[in-house]
Amino acid sequence: MSVRVGVIGATGAVGQRLIQQLAPHDDFEIAALTASESSAGKPYSEAAKWRASGPIPDGVGDVTVVETDPSAVGDDVDLLFSSLPSSVGERVEPAFAEAGYVVSSNSSNGRLDDDVPLVIPEVNADHVDLIEVQRDERGWDGALLKNPNCSTITMVPPLAALDDAFGLESVTVSTLQAVSGAGYDGVTSMEIIDNVLPHIGGEETKMETETCKLLGGFDGAELSWHDVEVSASCNRVPTLDGHLENVWAETAEDAGPAEAEQAFRDMPSVDLPSAPEQLIHVHEDPNRPQPRLDRDAEGGQAISVGPVQETPDGILFDSLAHNTIRGAAGASVLNGELLLERGYL
Amino acid sequence: MSVRVGVIGATGAVGQRLIQQLAPHDDFEIAALTASESSAGKPYSEAAKWRASGPIPDGVGDVTVVETDPSAVGDDVDLLFSSLPSSVGERVEPAFAEAGYVVSSNSSNGRLDDDVPLVIPEVNADHVDLIEVQRDERGWDGALLKNPNCSTITMVPPLAALDDAFGLESVTVSTLQAVSGAGYDGVTSMEIIDNVLPHIGGEETKMETETCKLLGGFDGAELSWHDVEVSASCNRVPTLDGHLENVWAETAEDAGPAEAEQAFRDMPSVDLPSAPEQLIHVHEDPNRPQPRLDRDAEGGQAISVGPVQETPDGILFDSLAHNTIRGAAGASVLNGELLLERGYL
Amino acid sequence: MSVRVGVIGATGAVGQRLIQQLAPHDDFEIAALTASESSAGKPYSEAAKWRASGPIPDGVGDVTVVETDPSAVGDDVDLLFSSLPSSVGERVEPAFAEAGYVVSSNSSNGRLDDDVPLVIPEVNADHVDLIEVQRDERGWDGALLKNPNCSTITMVPPLAALDDAFGLESVTVSTLQAVSGAGYDGVTSMEIIDNVLPHIGGEETKMETETCKLLGGFDGAELSWHDVEVSASCNRVPTLDGHLENVWAETAEDAGPAEAEQAFRDMPSVDLPSAPEQLIHVHEDPNRPQPRLDRDAEGGQAISVGPVQETPDGILFDSLAHNTIRGAAGASVLNGELLLERGYL
Amino acid sequence: MSVRVGVIGATGAVGQRLIQQLAPHDDFEIAALTASESSAGKPYSEAAKWRASGPIPDGVGDVTVVETDPSAVGDDVDLLFSSLPSSVGERVEPAFAEAGYVVSSNSSNGRLDDDVPLVIPEVNADHVDLIEVQRDERGWDGALLKNPNCSTITMVPPLAALDDAFGLESVTVSTLQAVSGAGYDGVTSMEIIDNVLPHIGGEETKMETETCKLLGGFDGAELSWHDVEVSASCNRVPTLDGHLENVWAETAEDAGPAEAEQAFRDMPSVDLPSAPEQLIHVHEDPNRPQPRLDRDAEGGQAISVGPVQETPDGILFDSLAHNTIRGAAGASVLNGELLLERGYL
Repeated sequence: MSVRVGVIGATGAVGQRLIQQLAPHDDFEIAALTASESSAGKPYSEAAKWRASGPIPDGVGDVTVVETDPSAVGDDVDLLFSSLPSSVGERVEPAFAEAGYVVSSNSSNGRLDDDVPLVIPEVNADHVDLIEVQRDERGWDGALLKNPNCSTITMVPPLAALDDAFGLESVTVSTLQAVSGAGYDGVTSMEIIDNVLPHIGGEETKMETETCKLLGGFDGAELSWHDVEVSASCNRVPTLDGHLENVWAETAEDAGPAEAEQAFRDMPSVDLPSAPEQLIHVHEDPNRPQPRLDRDAEGGQAISVGPVQETPDGILFDSLAHNTIRGAAGASVLNGELLLERGYL
Repeated sequence: MSVRVGVIGATGAVGQRLIQQLAPHDDFEIAALTASESSAGKPYSEAAKWRASGPIPDGVGDVTVVETDPSAVGDDVDLLFSSLPSSVGERVEPAFAEAGYVVSSNSSNGRLDDDVPLVIPEVNADHVDLIEVQRDERGWDGALLKNPNCSTITMVPPLAALDDAFGLESVTVSTLQAVSGAGYDGVTSMEIIDNVLPHIGGEETKMETETCKLLGGFDGAELSWHDVEVSASCNRVPTLDGHLENVWAETAEDAGPAEAEQAFRDMPSVDLPSAPEQLIHVHEDPNRPQPRLDRDAEGGQAISVGPVQETPDGILFDSLAHNTIRGAAGASVLNGELLLERGYL
Repeated sequence: MSVRVGVIGATGAVGQRLIQQLAPHDDFEIAALTASESSAGKPYSEAAKWRASGPIPDGVGDVTVVETDPSAVGDDVDLLFSSLPSSVGERVEPAFAEAGYVVSSNSSNGRLDDDVPLVIPEVNADHVDLIEVQRDERGWDGALLKNPNCSTITMVPPLAALDDAFGLESVTVSTLQAVSGAGYDGVTSMEIIDNVLPHIGGEETKMETETCKLLGGFDGAELSWHDVEVSASCNRVPTLDGHLENVWAETAEDAGPAEAEQAFRDMPSVDLPSAPEQLIHVHEDPNRPQPRLDRDAEGGQAISVGPVQETPDGILFDSLAHNTIRGAAGASVLNGELLLERGYL
Repeated sequence: MSVRVGVIGATGAVGQRLIQQLAPHDDFEIAALTASESSAGKPYSEAAKWRASGPIPDGVGDVTVVETDPSAVGDDVDLLFSSLPSSVGERVEPAFAEAGYVVSSNSSNGRLDDDVPLVIPEVNADHVDLIEVQRDERGWDGALLKNPNCSTITMVPPLAALDDAFGLESVTVSTLQAVSGAGYDGVTSMEIIDNVLPHIGGEETKMETETCKLLGGFDGAELSWHDVEVSASCNRVPTLDGHLENVWAETAEDAGPAEAEQAFRDMPSVDLPSAPEQLIHVHEDPNRPQPRLDRDAEGGQAISVGPVQETPDGILFDSLAHNTIRGAAGASVLNGELLLERGYL
């Protein structure tokens, strides 16, 4: 029996990706789509400017879009996937959680709150139980769970592998991020053709803070953040999908390239429907991973890394993920699957 | 009275940029153009597939191309600019120097040789006198002077400023390099559209070694290399011209962002015809420098850097230069001007 | 003594190009910049998000932006350059003309009105005197003059040459248009990277109608439109600047390729400061013109065409112009110069 | 029981696409891969620089590449797929056919020969029997069958529909072609970023002649070419895959937009494994088809057209196909399936 789910912010770029992930899903059934007031009342096919290749999935185009408000979504919907501008998310997500909905959110608001779990299932699935604390503190029947920013997700799985094996001390990371990460209208063609945009606003801080929360521990009552020092420089490049990151890592115990690659290969995946079989794909070719060639590995849910190199103070490797699948919509869906498995629905 | 100069490898991408720089030059007069055997005997307009916007400079199209061989270039030519694949440069550049020509070379061969000066005039002009040692050791009448790789040049001027002011200890750098850096045919469109190519072959080692030589001292007899530790990760992005680099620097003495920016602004230029008025342009906008907007600053000879940020262990900034002007052809021309000023012609 | 001019819609993409054209102009002096209410009162450097390479021209950044309203622009300003969305232009341009200002406009509103001259100086400068009719009919002290759409301007000069020499009967044209033609935010990177957008809205009708008006006659009282049949298909491609058009033309009298090319070369330019020396540049290389290589010919004011080919029913050639210079801002400036020369200021 | 097939020129761009099409094919089994002398003897995984996303299909990487020579390919191979430079194809394809192999070729050599069938199964499957004439005339046991150029295939199915319904008289076509059409190394990034290349060499003549042969009749003994007049202008744009074409058609009997669209929808597909269910997809959105969104329709084998417009002399529509699938590798595979169905294997 499938869980009835809704998509909050269903007409946006990540909203469309969510629909692509959810429509064929065995455990979830799309039962509600919300958008801004101007879209409410229209069939989805009319409300959304559909931009993906391929048509709107069967049955979805006819769904009547409702306003992004708890009162507009049916009581028989249990799980909501949310991808909103943080200023909107900040307002509406708590309202949905208070009204009893469980929300798996990709929006950036609240990601660092003490009682909001920030989760990558393969990295820190145990943090999901922070929901108990959240419910206690906020008096919610529902819950709010977050996935990290796309640039953070791209590097954290290999970093978690290094942390487990060698103890992670510091990270220096430079990103080459695809334009889809900024949303459909986020980067104009005049800005990016024959160009690079350095220093994406806010992105660097997200990588520096979210990493510490994700790699932190949870004792059932409180989160303890990891003390790894992260310094990030984030750049936008003329690529459609797929973030590539150059990652320098220093570890407490010496990690040689071969040991690090082994740690990556040994990092377990999880038993969730959308999880990749092999979480981290390690390439031997120094010219891989490349965004266009590797972003779709395992349906866009795998992380691809290149050969590890030794540096004066540690190691250097490239990490790549599909930013709107593993880094956004697919991340929220994985978290939804985790919520289901753990009995929160 | 102008110096008669020649261009070795005149039909290549950097060769064409050299011609664009030299044709209007007040001190230099193009008197010889060399290329491979198949081009010899043809007028330049026929031998070269001219790719620049704008026509071949007046008078150059009719010059008869000669073979890349000392015997084919007139005795009345004093200075040669060379940009060749290193395997070819290795063979022909010493032959020209032995035959009495002074060669300002952009080719990568021999850059690290003990008796070959590797020079950026604003950084280490004094190294040019290593030519005396070179002549002693090799018995040459001519000389061989090198400029560094384009990716190295992009970051070394600001690093030199930091070294002078605070003592440079280590550098971590990630590059976003334009396709022109690989030569006209170096990167196919199928490789790079909607993509990024990580780990450009050989580039990282060049940055790591050349930087130490450039920042080293010269006591009149011997070079001492700087012991700064450099770790580089080099990426090709879909940009035509202009390398952007994310540079993390650790210094002996603490350099705050304001002090570092001041050191950049204070870094003096040199009094050579092609040198920029202000060597390093410091932007206040965190979204600058950008390749397309800033590569042409001061005719492509200035270095542009963005606002400096503090990191856990030092500072972080972006540096940008036009890779085929400041990073290649223009670098060789500047070195030619230095050779003239210092009396080597 | 220079004419005091203003720019209406000064913060937009074409507005910025207008400022780049006007700031160094010998005959014009920038005395007023208008923009929307939210920009009024701010210095231009703050009101405009400057996107051109190179800084805001000297003196312009400090100009206080005023609202786009006749009452806000000083009486000592004689000529206004306008580039606005047509819905705005429709409202404000007549108000300025009524208030006594002469307006050289790039906006599409009113281009086809019977008493509004639509002018390319090299093609139909005599149409400018339609202003007399306009003033009679509308009771204006000022005047409203239009330049055509960028896609129209790109092909009309060579078509005018063919019409004069051989009589033009029909035109079939396919365009490959740069993204800047849609304004700075007009085309998102997600739409156009690795893609082409066919059938640009409204563009085809503009080419089909404006051409007939431009090539028409004016007897001092009334315009007679040319009866050439034009069929256009307009496409957006991932190019920054420069529209390339494949043009098939059928003429009353047979025009062979050589004769047509001669007609292009013989098409006279005009004696205005911004006009190119040679209006139409005819390339011999069948792979030219190309947008990136040829858009900047003569400061972006020349038209470049490729070798003419024979077809079953006529001839075929490629035509190219810089769409935001010759096709927009530069076109308006040329028209301003024509107004000055003809004594309308 | 599957047919044992080989790929001639297996390491090239179309060769790789052929392998992607053939490896999972139910009726064909890859039994031989040929390439140039330097690749012979190596396993395919080593001989080919694999560029597709996703790995080399299972079992193919270990196949030992043999030289492109009939004596090097086993007797138990019946059908060869060939994609070679025409100068090579001209030499080796007849040798294979003479040696008894049936060759389905994408190479351009011989496409216009009187006794060589040029076939798109949905358009002129009956031409395949020209093989009887070919065998008679040339004394071959094998056979040589061609598919047209990618730019031709993109427009001919809708043109055939128009011809059947209304009688086709003339065609004017402008193409916006993807870089993959020139082969992996055919277009450098320096040529095409921020640019368009007009007048692709040889392409226009192919469209003008191949169309007449494809639409011609075959009476069992001789081909009669169609007398439609075709004028083509071919352009390369910065798109990876998918040719978009603006097509103007004049018909004997008047075809209104609605009738033409109906003719497109009614054009039957064929009953071959790789054929699309619906040959021509007719979009209602005037901004479709677009290369990135529509090239993969029905596995890249469908043709997508946009809304039909009326023009002064006929109709105008856009047509799009995946150039390396429907336009090359997939076309050859379809022809191989036709050869099997018709009993030529």
